[in-house]
Amino acid sequence: MWVTSKEPAPRLRKSPEQVRSAVHQAVIDLLSDPEGADLTIPAVAQRAGVNHTSVYRRWGSREALLADVVVTRLERDWPLADTGSLRGDLTAWAEAGVASIRTAEGRLLIRAVALSMPGSATAQGERAQQFQRRLGAIERIRERAVTRGEVPPPLDQILDQLVAPLYLRAIFGIDPPASGYPELLVDRLLGGTGASRPG
Amino acid sequence: MWVTSKEPAPRLRKSPEQVRSAVHQAVIDLLSDPEGADLTIPAVAQRAGVNHTSVYRRWGSREALLADVVVTRLERDWPLADTGSLRGDLTAWAEAGVASIRTAEGRLLIRAVALSMPGSATAQGERAQQFQRRLGAIERIRERAVTRGEVPPPLDQILDQLVAPLYLRAIFGIDPPASGYPELLVDRLLGGTGASRPG
Repeated sequence: MWVTSKEPAPRLRKSPEQVRSAVHQAVIDLLSDPEGADLTIPAVAQRAGVNHTSVYRRWGSREALLADVVVTRLERDWPLADTGSLRGDLTAWAEAGVASIRTAEGRLLIRAVALSMPGSATAQGERAQQFQRRLGAIERIRERAVTRGEVPPPLDQILDQLVAPLYLRAIFGIDPPASGYPELLVDRLLGGTGASRPG
Repeated sequence: MWVTSKEPAPRLRKSPEQVRSAVHQAVIDLLSDPEGADLTIPAVAQRAGVNHTSVYRRWGSREALLADVVVTRLERDWPLADTGSLRGDLTAWAEAGVASIRTAEGRLLIRAVALSMPGSATAQGERAQQFQRRLGAIERIRERAVTRGEVPPPLDQILDQLVAPLYLRAIFGIDPPASGYPELLVDRLLGGTGASRPG
């Protein structure tokens, strides 16, 4: 094993799944740190009790690691219900979203989506692509609606009227209205679809 | 001057205004760095050619510095027009916003608003407060409307339907529609106010 002699020995030999789970938890812990600890790969590795070289090998970069954590947790916490109608599916998605951003971890995760985006001014296209991958749930809701014969609003409009308010509130820590908020957002979105707008 | 002997001598003696300007430009440069340079106070000070102790003394923290840069630049690039009507003022605000997020610096600044927020899970209230200070322009537009006898939508609704889409697109690098976007956002916002919604 002399080829790995430059790496300090890990305290315990962990399975790949244990490494993944420990690393994910370390990311959540560091994001939650009230002192605002820097989220670097060495800091994550130390907290998870694993080699930082294995973290680099498996995830490649801080951004890719954050993206993996975020997608995994959001899929777990924000599942995709099939309610039988476009309005029902969008309302269920918004309800899960509102429930999620009412928790500290939910807000952290959405904030981490923003932080995990490539940071540079020139990576505009790459950033948009990564974000759109995370809109997979919305795409599937639209596809289901089309299969049922419904006409869903364009993705762009769902982004503006449903995703943006939830994300902005999560990122900036602004509480959603106490009740009826998912329905309000969906009413604004679908109420204006394919119908003339008053005013 | 022995009391400051622990600080390295600055290369040139700058006036406070020159320090502020050099430090602000250094923040913008670091935010724009395609390598994704870390935005730390020592890195900013080095790039600006000033003592990092004077940066700490003047701004206190990385977050406070970022907030100062963002507010200064956004006020310069996103001025507040008085067009004589609520619809006109909101459209002008949205037009300035769309023009701003079409530029790399504009997107960086809004991204920096998110990054400059206190990072911890427990600072929810503080984060919301800081963000609301940056909604001053919207508050002034609402106050003017009330003075004219118009009935503006609640701040919360303007946040959801006008601010959130622009901020989300800036943060995630999603281009706004090529034309008519400011008017579209304002139509969605005011079209639904105080009138029954179709559908």
